[in-house]
Amino acid sequence: MIYADNAATTKLDIDAFEAMKPFLFENYGNASQPYSFSRISRKALREARQSIANCINADPDEIYFTSGGTESDNWAIKGCMKSSSVYRSIITSEFEHHAILNACKCMESYGYPVTYLPPSKDGFITPEILDSIITNEASLVSIMMVNNEIGTIQPIKKLCEVTHQHKGLFHTDAVQAAGHISVDVNDLNIDMLSCSAHKFNGPKGVGFLYIKKGIKILPYMEGGMQEFGMRAGTENVASIVGMAVALTNNVATIHDNKKYLDRLEQTILKQLYANGIDFIRNGAKPYVPGNLSLSFKGFEGEMLLHRLDLMGIMVSTGSACDSKNTQISHVLKAIKTDERYALGTIRISLGRDNTNDEAIKIADALISIVKKNNY
Amino acid sequence: MIYADNAATTKLDIDAFEAMKPFLFENYGNASQPYSFSRISRKALREARQSIANCINADPDEIYFTSGGTESDNWAIKGCMKSSSVYRSIITSEFEHHAILNACKCMESYGYPVTYLPPSKDGFITPEILDSIITNEASLVSIMMVNNEIGTIQPIKKLCEVTHQHKGLFHTDAVQAAGHISVDVNDLNIDMLSCSAHKFNGPKGVGFLYIKKGIKILPYMEGGMQEFGMRAGTENVASIVGMAVALTNNVATIHDNKKYLDRLEQTILKQLYANGIDFIRNGAKPYVPGNLSLSFKGFEGEMLLHRLDLMGIMVSTGSACDSKNTQISHVLKAIKTDERYALGTIRISLGRDNTNDEAIKIADALISIVKKNNY
Repeated sequence: MIYADNAATTKLDIDAFEAMKPFLFENYGNASQPYSFSRISRKALREARQSIANCINADPDEIYFTSGGTESDNWAIKGCMKSSSVYRSIITSEFEHHAILNACKCMESYGYPVTYLPPSKDGFITPEILDSIITNEASLVSIMMVNNEIGTIQPIKKLCEVTHQHKGLFHTDAVQAAGHISVDVNDLNIDMLSCSAHKFNGPKGVGFLYIKKGIKILPYMEGGMQEFGMRAGTENVASIVGMAVALTNNVATIHDNKKYLDRLEQTILKQLYANGIDFIRNGAKPYVPGNLSLSFKGFEGEMLLHRLDLMGIMVSTGSACDSKNTQISHVLKAIKTDERYALGTIRISLGRDNTNDEAIKIADALISIVKKNNY
Repeated sequence: MIYADNAATTKLDIDAFEAMKPFLFENYGNASQPYSFSRISRKALREARQSIANCINADPDEIYFTSGGTESDNWAIKGCMKSSSVYRSIITSEFEHHAILNACKCMESYGYPVTYLPPSKDGFITPEILDSIITNEASLVSIMMVNNEIGTIQPIKKLCEVTHQHKGLFHTDAVQAAGHISVDVNDLNIDMLSCSAHKFNGPKGVGFLYIKKGIKILPYMEGGMQEFGMRAGTENVASIVGMAVALTNNVATIHDNKKYLDRLEQTILKQLYANGIDFIRNGAKPYVPGNLSLSFKGFEGEMLLHRLDLMGIMVSTGSACDSKNTQISHVLKAIKTDERYALGTIRISLGRDNTNDEAIKIADALISIVKKNNY
């Protein structure tokens, strides 16, 4: 099998698993208990929080563990709007992940106005468009760091600047970014940032929300006093430890990995061009490494996905969370991809385990499907 | 080490771990993707849902996977109150877990009236007290199945009956019950039920909410279409599979385990009585197997916990989620435990891995601490 759907989920890092094992077994103590046995879990939690903070240049007490990206996104949007009367409206984009879009729709149903910014045709929310919409009424602005379908890296630093100039609060869904591109919350001056472990070779079911010190937000899960009293529930120590190791490992090799994946991308693209395949690559540079959203004229994405599947190659049509929707995705609609191409879109997302030989096979497979169908 | 805090968390079942492993590694596909690789994860999810449904006599499409008991409780309370104008008030008890109490307080802050029923001195919410309070205004009633500190099993079937007679909706926090006592949602006629895997030898960070067919509740995590569109977020397949195996194993041995734990409890109690120790056991029968809430006159629970810890024995003062609070717990206050005893309370919660020899050692340790201090 050739797995080329790393934007949907990734294979668990072996070091992460080895680090998790003792906390699944012998050191199973509840991290919130005061006795000696639980000190081991508590220490592991503390170290994991520090490691993760280091990876994004945050302080450890700005990292709040959650059950994943969706929870982090829901918390940021809902916890923030309800926490005070300061933030009364939301500005987001049309091509956010559904965790943001649906959390925003929920707040809209409670009467909070939400503005959905359209991305440019090449897949970016520009500081200019944000500046043209935002008022000084202190909005919550939530723009993803990397689009999950087309891989475009958003100008977060400038979007933050514009937001802060207008007394707003800036959140970013960095689920597709962390572990893949450098993320420095201090340099970017972000207020809140969502992450999910299984997108960077960590385990599923765990993530975190970065909340800058001083930001007022209500808890989303209420109960015990875990996570500084901000996120109740017995700490998932093993998964948190695994997440920290996976992120640390990915961040350590981030530049080499980019070079490596860029090369694999080029292998595929060059081969398609060389064979005269009629396709477009959605979005424009800068892209997150490894993400290729390709639209083939006159094809259907679902057909391409299944033909590739029969050839042992796993790719996606859109995001996994939207896989039941076989129409043109909200992302491609937002960037106004030519409909003749848009229907025939697949997302190839390469990861560190993919080889150049696999890239060649992916391109060969696509070429054979397209050529067979055209003649 | 003698681990006697199984109500805080339990050791992972080895079969559960073995079942999880393939989904942590080779079968890591995102269960929401349509290609063949993900069919393995999807099949595992389907089977886990069926196994769990079998354990509580539910239908599989009534089982919604969550990140644990706290999420399930928050979802049940908040999702239900907001979903319609039918349910406008909550009735709960004074001695619920904080996941329920704080979710209720949250709804109270939004203007929903909440009534907190006092338990009887022996630790029960009686159908009579519920009947005396409930009106026909269709309340959401949430009463835990087993109290997490004192282990008393609540008369859920009758509480359900009273609730339904008054057009109410009945939720139970069964976090301390599932896998430990028989739970039959059909026989009990429950509308919603919360569970947490790590309380029945499953992994941390996963649980489920049973929602009876036809019950209207809003999603709590919004985003993708996972869990029948009701709980977004990439499915935590490995942990869900582990939870299903752990619950199935525990349910299969539930009667033998009860007999076994009852015997260990008696070992401890008899030894304490035989040595003339001045203590009371909080609550009254029926108790969940293995839970002993013991109050020692003239002692402090924290001191007892730390002395036992030094002797290699892990017990709790109250619930893990409340471990920073060294005062008398809200549970002991609610059942009006004599204050001279209440301050000296520990919870010994035995599990299937404890031996009779360990029970003897726990009693010996308690006797030596109490006697040394008294003379």
